[in-house]
Amino acid sequence: MTPPAADLVITRCTVLTHDDQETIGFAEDASILVRNGIVEAVVSGAEAGGVPARERIDAHGQIALPGLINCHTHAPMAALRGVAEDLPTDAWFNDVVWPVESNLTARDVELGARLACAEMIRAGVTCFADHYFAMDAVAAVVEECGIRAHLGEAYFSSQGPAGRERSLEFALEHRGRAGGRITTTLAPHAPYTVDDTDLAATARLAHEHGLPVHLHAAENRDQTTTSLQRHGVTPIEVLRRTGLLDTDVLIAHGTGILDDDLPALRDAGGRVAVATAPRGYLKFGWPTTTPVRALREIGVPVGLATDGAASNNSLDVWESMALTALVQKSTTGDPRWLTARQALHHATLQSARAVGLGDTIGSIAPGRRADIVLVDLSGPHTQPVHDLAATLVHSARSSDVRTTIVDGRVLMRDRELLTLDVPSVVRELGERLPTLLDRGHGRRIQEYDT
Amino acid sequence: MTPPAADLVITRCTVLTHDDQETIGFAEDASILVRNGIVEAVVSGAEAGGVPARERIDAHGQIALPGLINCHTHAPMAALRGVAEDLPTDAWFNDVVWPVESNLTARDVELGARLACAEMIRAGVTCFADHYFAMDAVAAVVEECGIRAHLGEAYFSSQGPAGRERSLEFALEHRGRAGGRITTTLAPHAPYTVDDTDLAATARLAHEHGLPVHLHAAENRDQTTTSLQRHGVTPIEVLRRTGLLDTDVLIAHGTGILDDDLPALRDAGGRVAVATAPRGYLKFGWPTTTPVRALREIGVPVGLATDGAASNNSLDVWESMALTALVQKSTTGDPRWLTARQALHHATLQSARAVGLGDTIGSIAPGRRADIVLVDLSGPHTQPVHDLAATLVHSARSSDVRTTIVDGRVLMRDRELLTLDVPSVVRELGERLPTLLDRGHGRRIQEYDT
Repeated sequence: MTPPAADLVITRCTVLTHDDQETIGFAEDASILVRNGIVEAVVSGAEAGGVPARERIDAHGQIALPGLINCHTHAPMAALRGVAEDLPTDAWFNDVVWPVESNLTARDVELGARLACAEMIRAGVTCFADHYFAMDAVAAVVEECGIRAHLGEAYFSSQGPAGRERSLEFALEHRGRAGGRITTTLAPHAPYTVDDTDLAATARLAHEHGLPVHLHAAENRDQTTTSLQRHGVTPIEVLRRTGLLDTDVLIAHGTGILDDDLPALRDAGGRVAVATAPRGYLKFGWPTTTPVRALREIGVPVGLATDGAASNNSLDVWESMALTALVQKSTTGDPRWLTARQALHHATLQSARAVGLGDTIGSIAPGRRADIVLVDLSGPHTQPVHDLAATLVHSARSSDVRTTIVDGRVLMRDRELLTLDVPSVVRELGERLPTLLDRGHGRRIQEYDT
Repeated sequence: MTPPAADLVITRCTVLTHDDQETIGFAEDASILVRNGIVEAVVSGAEAGGVPARERIDAHGQIALPGLINCHTHAPMAALRGVAEDLPTDAWFNDVVWPVESNLTARDVELGARLACAEMIRAGVTCFADHYFAMDAVAAVVEECGIRAHLGEAYFSSQGPAGRERSLEFALEHRGRAGGRITTTLAPHAPYTVDDTDLAATARLAHEHGLPVHLHAAENRDQTTTSLQRHGVTPIEVLRRTGLLDTDVLIAHGTGILDDDLPALRDAGGRVAVATAPRGYLKFGWPTTTPVRALREIGVPVGLATDGAASNNSLDVWESMALTALVQKSTTGDPRWLTARQALHHATLQSARAVGLGDTIGSIAPGRRADIVLVDLSGPHTQPVHDLAATLVHSARSSDVRTTIVDGRVLMRDRELLTLDVPSVVRELGERLPTLLDRGHGRRIQEYDT
């Protein structure tokens, strides 16, 4: 009897695998069977030969990885890539980004999101956690282009209750959209822009509606110092006392997390995770980076991220993976820490957990969603391969991703984007930029004063 | 009267330029005329239309940059990419690299160099400063593949006088070869492996034969500390008192340079330069990086480098450019320092000076050798362009280089290598690796004891 046809079979590749202890391994000459957007099986090359399939990809010599996950970004800010260079954090916010964002329209957000999704799909990113404004437009782009996303409508207390209400409304309306590719979150901006009353209300709404929370907290050491001076507590302690640590909370950056904050994170009632975007910390000259090693010791997953392109200049999660390894070695002074395999663990299972999809994505295994990227290591810069994990983390680049697949659907094939038209986005964005960038009005959406 | 035909005309691109004060600018809609391997003129788009040429490249929408220069590498170590991961410096040398290098044959060096040149040409590198063994083989590869190189045969005092003599012999024999694309240098390994007598003899030979010197010195802070403990002086002071600072000397790394060393470098009788390869410093967990800002203040050029791929995992000078900017901001705590334009200055004129070719390459200007790369910024990760310098340094990647030209000869066109056959190199190298990597003999070429 002929077995039923698979939707997609990827043949003859090397597959990154996780065993029961989550140790990373590589299955050579393997094939991946996909049905209904789900990985049905990973089998040996010979076994896959007889399986009928509607679509086959011969990935001979390529590596199949779980798609990368960008655990904290502001995708539409791709439109602002390069507008605020070589500036300290306060000038970056107050002199450029927050004045410019007061001009933002839903159409700008849509175009920026489309550009960002194009960039991410080309870089092997299959899911992103977005925290921005006019998120209906981002959701529409996600629906259209086939990527997976974890979306939250950002708000400040300066908006009054309407900001918080809009964030909830968005989260409830879009949860589960795009065939389940969209998950949602409440998205207060940060403890320095959202007051304790609003944070506590957010925690209550999260419990009431079964929603997670995604926010910036302890982004840098200055914020922690200022919080201690003004309120006598750290930003993490603010999260604890407002109840946010009893929700499923994703904390962006956390380079200002102190050793004294670790017990609160360890003992949190909710699932706490941190997203690290190390490029921006270097670029802003922040004195510390995310304490990945300390967080590991208390069992808090750390996912990889890029932040927005206005600060990070790219949405290249592959670079975040390499930089996380390098910066962790450098800041701990220990070259044996954060090995290539550990970096791959952050890029896969820990990132999936950070965005609340720890049981769904982050691994190529039966029952997981088929979010897969195929990487070509035949270039001279990735040869010879003595240690495949090291080659992937330290030699390969996002441009080595040949094919990007989400829910079993091919979004990029041989580096050609199948669901987005970059030139038309760039053209329209170019026309809109003079209006978007105008700062003559003297307004800004918020004041940065940590 | 028809003007004589140019050898090559590159039309309709944006050209990175340097003015009299070396300020970086961009000439839009420009064309570059090349004759006899030299840039004859940079003209406006309209002017180039009528110029007859043997070869034309329409570079519409692309950016023409001076080719990148890798100011310190060990190209053949591309064969050892990934063999010694996540190790401290001493274990990296003593347990893996120096045992493996005791197996090295000229054929291994040749294949490694060929792989490295393929990687570099694809990454927009048009010149590299190489410091290794069996350099005749490297010179042959340079001759064959069309890249430019500054080559030195490395030696240790443990080899006796033969090492130093061989380094001189190589430098004299190969100087000016490959139609002038090869320049040469004396190449003692480092003050911790070459004694003062040999360093002083090297300085004398440099003067006698008009040769520069390229060596490792003050690579890390431990080396400086050990030198002070054992000899009462820093490695830089060793260079001074052995006469090496009165030669044209290229110092690799220098992350262990102390403030007290700066006067000796400032007052050096020769042209002193430093090569920085920041990726490796992060990866080894070294506590400091090259003091680029302090060196700038005393007028010492700092060129960009990758070191060998066995430590750096790639020969991606583009990444070194971005990391130099990021790590300088981070280590000085000043986001305004090492701007994108300053990074481009290091990548161009300062790197050219570091390899002794400050009057020959490093700028696209009349009379300079035509070492040019064309970069495509149409990808979603490099759009929109608000600040071209920032886009080049912080958003573009080496994989955005479409075309690489050395001495007016196209070595890569539309990412296709024209002078090297990567699959055949990878195949033969793969066959040789088991023998090359065998450490059963218990030998090593040298002991790392700073």
